[in-house]
Amino acid sequence: MESGSRGAAPGRVSVSAVLPAGGSGERLGGATPKQFCAVQGRPLVSYAVRAMERISWISDIIVVVSPENIETMKTIIEKYGHKRVTVVEGGRTRHRSIFNGLKVFAENEFSSHLVQKPEVVIIHDAVRPFVDEDIVSKVVMAAKEHGAAGAIRPLVSTVIASAADGCLDHSLERARYRASEMPQAFLFDIIYEAYQQCTDYDLDYGTECLHLALKYCKTNAKLVEGTADLWKVTYKRDLYAAESIIKDNLSQQVCVITSVKETLAQIGFLLPESLKSQIKVEAISIPLSKNDSHLQNIISGQCNNFVCVNDKRWAIQETQELVDMLEISNIPLLCPVVLILVHLDISENNSFSIGVEDLTTIKKFARETKKKNILVYGLLIQYK
Amino acid sequence: MESGSRGAAPGRVSVSAVLPAGGSGERLGGATPKQFCAVQGRPLVSYAVRAMERISWISDIIVVVSPENIETMKTIIEKYGHKRVTVVEGGRTRHRSIFNGLKVFAENEFSSHLVQKPEVVIIHDAVRPFVDEDIVSKVVMAAKEHGAAGAIRPLVSTVIASAADGCLDHSLERARYRASEMPQAFLFDIIYEAYQQCTDYDLDYGTECLHLALKYCKTNAKLVEGTADLWKVTYKRDLYAAESIIKDNLSQQVCVITSVKETLAQIGFLLPESLKSQIKVEAISIPLSKNDSHLQNIISGQCNNFVCVNDKRWAIQETQELVDMLEISNIPLLCPVVLILVHLDISENNSFSIGVEDLTTIKKFARETKKKNILVYGLLIQYK
Repeated sequence: MESGSRGAAPGRVSVSAVLPAGGSGERLGGATPKQFCAVQGRPLVSYAVRAMERISWISDIIVVVSPENIETMKTIIEKYGHKRVTVVEGGRTRHRSIFNGLKVFAENEFSSHLVQKPEVVIIHDAVRPFVDEDIVSKVVMAAKEHGAAGAIRPLVSTVIASAADGCLDHSLERARYRASEMPQAFLFDIIYEAYQQCTDYDLDYGTECLHLALKYCKTNAKLVEGTADLWKVTYKRDLYAAESIIKDNLSQQVCVITSVKETLAQIGFLLPESLKSQIKVEAISIPLSKNDSHLQNIISGQCNNFVCVNDKRWAIQETQELVDMLEISNIPLLCPVVLILVHLDISENNSFSIGVEDLTTIKKFARETKKKNILVYGLLIQYK
Repeated sequence: MESGSRGAAPGRVSVSAVLPAGGSGERLGGATPKQFCAVQGRPLVSYAVRAMERISWISDIIVVVSPENIETMKTIIEKYGHKRVTVVEGGRTRHRSIFNGLKVFAENEFSSHLVQKPEVVIIHDAVRPFVDEDIVSKVVMAAKEHGAAGAIRPLVSTVIASAADGCLDHSLERARYRASEMPQAFLFDIIYEAYQQCTDYDLDYGTECLHLALKYCKTNAKLVEGTADLWKVTYKRDLYAAESIIKDNLSQQVCVITSVKETLAQIGFLLPESLKSQIKVEAISIPLSKNDSHLQNIISGQCNNFVCVNDKRWAIQETQELVDMLEISNIPLLCPVVLILVHLDISENNSFSIGVEDLTTIKKFARETKKKNILVYGLLIQYK
């Protein structure tokens, strides 16, 4: 579930997020760190930021990057219109970067960043692009109750311990163990206390925040079962997978908008019903308008295909409002948005009720929107 | 490294393989078990079988499938021309299926299968399509020496143990543990002995063959670092990744074949050099001939693009031999093979040394090969 407006945090707790994005991506085998690799033309980190940003109750998003990538990150934030994001310089390890991110909240009287210390802080990875509000909310609520919480997944492979001679020492019983994934969340004071007590060894060689909360604050994190989508982009094949998932999502969702009149509302019901077996359909009956929060949510959810059913003369004005919403969303920056305007002619008149003038207007309109990567098509249906 | 001919096994040991392919693929979320999902039009299991089959020193490949998939598997073997493969009915768990596969070797006097008990048996998964001879050879040699061996990979996520209340009990130090992957190999008598001693609990709930060898035969398996490609296709995203890797491999490899004459050998050097930055290039200087083992190996490696540089009149006869080799390999069944015949004219004569008759011949030839999904193009270059 996504929320477009700034709703209340789960349990009325103030929440912010830290995204460590300082890794070098050695395992990917390329020169570009994986968080900056383009997936469908957009850097991976931008998807993770977007996933956090569209959760309305997250106040601030701290992205921690290595010094040489600060400008790159700022450019990404500007290009994709990210809001509520602060870029912070990272350290030479993951734990040092997260600690730097947390310091921004704790020491804000000394820093130039205008962020408030949250009650709960989420820690998520820049290389996990698919995280939905549901799991973030569960982890935050569990952290509020237990002091710390983290998403987990079943192990895919058996885990084994090797002896000094490179031979098997023992294998772990797979069912008793879990893979620790992200997001994780903590009462801010607990995780910050833990980082302050960390040894240099922890900061240099450790990777697990839940471990620090346990070791230094005696806080046993609550473990929350996550979905398979939470996996971390690690190897090149994971970039391929992320790209395919994004393409799939783009092409497999359509929003059908019908005006609220009776005949049209019926079509607005029948069309989605017949599409449902092949594609994910969101159907709404509204006049096209900027103030509809359901439509806003659908756009926030990166929907790229719209069908607008109308019985009026070509409703350019209302379509313009939808085009404006799409433009503000930055969705057309990534890939084309398709907008099919269906004009449903329910008059008794046998002749087509569209004149040359209307055609010229819509053609001109489509030419203009095409420059914005929004492809408008018109369809005239006689319905008797 | 791949080998097309039946060479000697590493360490002169007799080797066969068992591929459990009985899984239901629940985690994939589809109706088709993942080993039968199509990747670039071909079932995943066929890639894994092919990977084993092109290792010449593996005598028999036992594919274990659930009863309802025996016919499907037989159809796949026929369609893709797999050799040395025996299909065996599996049990209701992974361990039971592997045990059934091993029984074929141990009890062959009672069975209708004509396979010899090998000294070393490889166990590999049907859902790990990318395994090269190098790692298989290392694992087999280690098994010969230690009795058991398996490929391992570093852990991607930290592994944690949860307490009864669903909270973190402890996290494992990531550097001390490894993910156990496939292939694994065993002295046949050791793993068969282990399976014979297994309890029903082991057979029903266990998954790790290395564990059985340790528990029942006190054999500490040698652990061999594998490449990232060894991962197991588990989720839908892994199918996407596999597809992209296969596409990448297909489009990014070209074999340049030049005749052995001096001028051509020079071209045969310069052309690959200039292509190398963009594509994986194999260059060989030979007359096109069925008996060249290097060319056979390249074809076995699923190369789909060939450039043949020649200074003779259009060498249809020799090209026909290459077309025959490709046809036997079944490569064109999967996707088109591109064959570019470059005729290098090094005569002093200013006129093009190709007549209408030659053109007609090559056009006719290309039409015929196109039916076999082999696309032949001719290119005439005057070189002075």
